[in-house]
Amino acid sequence: MNVTIWNEHRHEKTNPRVAALYPGGIHEAIAAPLRAHPAVGTVRTATLDDPENGLPVRVLDATDVLLWWGHVAHKEVCDSTVQRVQKRVLEGMGLIVLHSAHHSKVFKALMGDTCSLRWREATDRERLWVVTPAHPIAAGLPAHFELPAEEMYGEPFGIPAPEHVVFISWFTGGEVFRSGVTWQRGNGRVFYFRPGHETYPTYHNAHVQRVIANAVQWARPVVRIADACPNTAPLEPLP
Amino acid sequence: MNVTIWNEHRHEKTNPRVAALYPGGIHEAIAAPLRAHPAVGTVRTATLDDPENGLPVRVLDATDVLLWWGHVAHKEVCDSTVQRVQKRVLEGMGLIVLHSAHHSKVFKALMGDTCSLRWREATDRERLWVVTPAHPIAAGLPAHFELPAEEMYGEPFGIPAPEHVVFISWFTGGEVFRSGVTWQRGNGRVFYFRPGHETYPTYHNAHVQRVIANAVQWARPVVRIADACPNTAPLEPLP
Amino acid sequence: MNVTIWNEHRHEKTNPRVAALYPGGIHEAIAAPLRAHPAVGTVRTATLDDPENGLPVRVLDATDVLLWWGHVAHKEVCDSTVQRVQKRVLEGMGLIVLHSAHHSKVFKALMGDTCSLRWREATDRERLWVVTPAHPIAAGLPAHFELPAEEMYGEPFGIPAPEHVVFISWFTGGEVFRSGVTWQRGNGRVFYFRPGHETYPTYHNAHVQRVIANAVQWARPVVRIADACPNTAPLEPLP
Amino acid sequence: MNVTIWNEHRHEKTNPRVAALYPGGIHEAIAAPLRAHPAVGTVRTATLDDPENGLPVRVLDATDVLLWWGHVAHKEVCDSTVQRVQKRVLEGMGLIVLHSAHHSKVFKALMGDTCSLRWREATDRERLWVVTPAHPIAAGLPAHFELPAEEMYGEPFGIPAPEHVVFISWFTGGEVFRSGVTWQRGNGRVFYFRPGHETYPTYHNAHVQRVIANAVQWARPVVRIADACPNTAPLEPLP
Repeated sequence: MNVTIWNEHRHEKTNPRVAALYPGGIHEAIAAPLRAHPAVGTVRTATLDDPENGLPVRVLDATDVLLWWGHVAHKEVCDSTVQRVQKRVLEGMGLIVLHSAHHSKVFKALMGDTCSLRWREATDRERLWVVTPAHPIAAGLPAHFELPAEEMYGEPFGIPAPEHVVFISWFTGGEVFRSGVTWQRGNGRVFYFRPGHETYPTYHNAHVQRVIANAVQWARPVVRIADACPNTAPLEPLP
Repeated sequence: MNVTIWNEHRHEKTNPRVAALYPGGIHEAIAAPLRAHPAVGTVRTATLDDPENGLPVRVLDATDVLLWWGHVAHKEVCDSTVQRVQKRVLEGMGLIVLHSAHHSKVFKALMGDTCSLRWREATDRERLWVVTPAHPIAAGLPAHFELPAEEMYGEPFGIPAPEHVVFISWFTGGEVFRSGVTWQRGNGRVFYFRPGHETYPTYHNAHVQRVIANAVQWARPVVRIADACPNTAPLEPLP
Repeated sequence: MNVTIWNEHRHEKTNPRVAALYPGGIHEAIAAPLRAHPAVGTVRTATLDDPENGLPVRVLDATDVLLWWGHVAHKEVCDSTVQRVQKRVLEGMGLIVLHSAHHSKVFKALMGDTCSLRWREATDRERLWVVTPAHPIAAGLPAHFELPAEEMYGEPFGIPAPEHVVFISWFTGGEVFRSGVTWQRGNGRVFYFRPGHETYPTYHNAHVQRVIANAVQWARPVVRIADACPNTAPLEPLP
Repeated sequence: MNVTIWNEHRHEKTNPRVAALYPGGIHEAIAAPLRAHPAVGTVRTATLDDPENGLPVRVLDATDVLLWWGHVAHKEVCDSTVQRVQKRVLEGMGLIVLHSAHHSKVFKALMGDTCSLRWREATDRERLWVVTPAHPIAAGLPAHFELPAEEMYGEPFGIPAPEHVVFISWFTGGEVFRSGVTWQRGNGRVFYFRPGHETYPTYHNAHVQRVIANAVQWARPVVRIADACPNTAPLEPLP
């Protein structure tokens, strides 16, 4: 299985606090435990400032599951990149959308919805409850786990009704959020996972790493089918 | 309740067979029974070649439910029109997508999927089965009804898992199709209804008219809420 | 529209605190605002100790929407009563399941699931967030509302994937819960609403009363269809 | 992975045509290809007339996926057997419900619905269309496959809204049916698969065998969790 981790990679270059937490970039922090994972093969990374946003056709063609982290530069992602990624998801590639990528062009294009929410950067504590313990993305996790400091995201979350709600978060400040949710689009599986604000060490948390590794395995393609809208002959005699 | 019927209005101008079936355009054929319906107030029509595609902000602002018929000119619809329509659906406006509009920009933007299918123009007979008799869109319909001549659409239909499947069609040539399906996007309700090829008198069929009238009532907005992603203060003391 | 409110009516007879809060029984507290509601017609009540548990065929036949509150006496409800209620829901009657009735025989029979959860009687504060503002059950409600004292129910809630999650609750003690959820079973609509512990004045809360009145209107039957599994002749010639 | 195939095993003893098609019983016909499958371990069979209906606790405890075929003797299945099976599904065991078992006590208990349909024994031809090509249950199948002779089942099918519709069937006589559908109940996965009337060689069909083998793998448990409704201490200080 080939995994590609996309990161806009901007905060790390301008905010020393983020650079200190993620010296190789958020993408490398996400990549490290996946590189050590027995079920994962090649792990590539790609960033906004790479040619073709790091996602030319040959990279997407060779990607089974794509992870996406973006925040301040959503608008800078080329529309052609968004179209290539969406096309590959509809063919069967898995997609894992992380934290502030709720407002990424890629996620909004696949959801068709606002993907808006309420938010607060004020060092809330977040507790994620496992709502669907039998979901493969929850495998090996305790009934709940905590992130001692995170940005708050609160409901209503402007998304289409999910297929499964895997996690719901409780925040110190009084809010709740569907923090792990799944859909299928075309032949591809999509998982949105809430935590991951750049100023906190979230991607170093073992439970978060476990969720991401589980999600990568869950999102692995079953088929690869190019879009087609064929004119077809009848299978039975027409009158 | 204010209804707007949008039609690309091209076939009627170039194909005498279509012009004969729908002398005022498909939009007027759809409008006539709605204008006579006690639960429907104003019925407007709008077409592709009108300024702003007939759907400027003031028209959309005054529309509770929009119906959309398009076929050969999907690409000519302005992207700004698509964005205005999508924004209004997410605010709460109902949308009824008819037949070949499965590949309209508006529907694809809301679904995020291929919306592709198999098809054949060969005068199949279509029988629509009511799969969810308790759905308001099926109110007053028999267990099944037939259209003696229609274009065939067959599965797989490239759509996100619907909230409800109201109708499934059987075709003489051997195919099946989820021909009446619902979703919610943002605060708006969306209904896709399969029949309606321009060379057949489908919109003069009493059962089809009943489905459309039911769908218009079902899709009526419950709320109107503009998209927002607010920064909010905590409701409980943070540590 | 005819509404019947069922209550096991036991706590009120043995616990003075409950009797003081609900002198006429929980059923009468729920009935009062519905009796004053313009969209509701007759409001009946029925209790466990009535003949046939207060729900003989003629009462169920004349009921459009049934509300159910039970707690300590789930096992005392006759299996024949459960079967009558389930049959009527499948025909089209609406059902609103309140609080501790998550473990009622009626709800478990319709869900086929454990319907279990975690709980605590310790006077948590509960804040209900509106997750689906466009749902008719949320009409007229603020973005969130609070109950200053309630029993806690926490996830995971052992229910089939709901059609819509209308509310998610936040609790002081650190838990979350899908506190307003909908399903369809047969031709009937089912709504589970979490709040309503007998030792708190929850059914006197205006927001709770609003939710219940909205739910009663939402759950109104669209059709009434008796179960049948008919042997049917072919509609097309068989080979 | 341990698979148990349950069959009421009555038609084979009384109808020579069925006995000729399935000399070892329908259960053995289903078992044979699974016994040869590399991903499947032990394959047991169990029948209605075995002690405890062939499904004592120790058998269910050792079963990962249970297949169920029943028809004329649904009522003879002990209620205690139904309760044991339902409990194991809710813990995590997979369940594959075949053909006329749509009216089995086990399936109805898990669905809470009528599970009724229209039907005809008249040697229709059935064509199953793959509606969700990316579903693991459809792996390796063509876009559609045919059964030259089958009993007809037609919509409406009285089931809760499925999580995924994998197949929809077309019948010569003019009907359609959601012939492969999935749900989750508790921690267990449930798949209903329509074909399999006892007087036809359906279980010798390679495509049908493929669907069943795929479904067995898909339904494999992710977790095993006993039902519990725990009283839990707060995780945060209560006021």
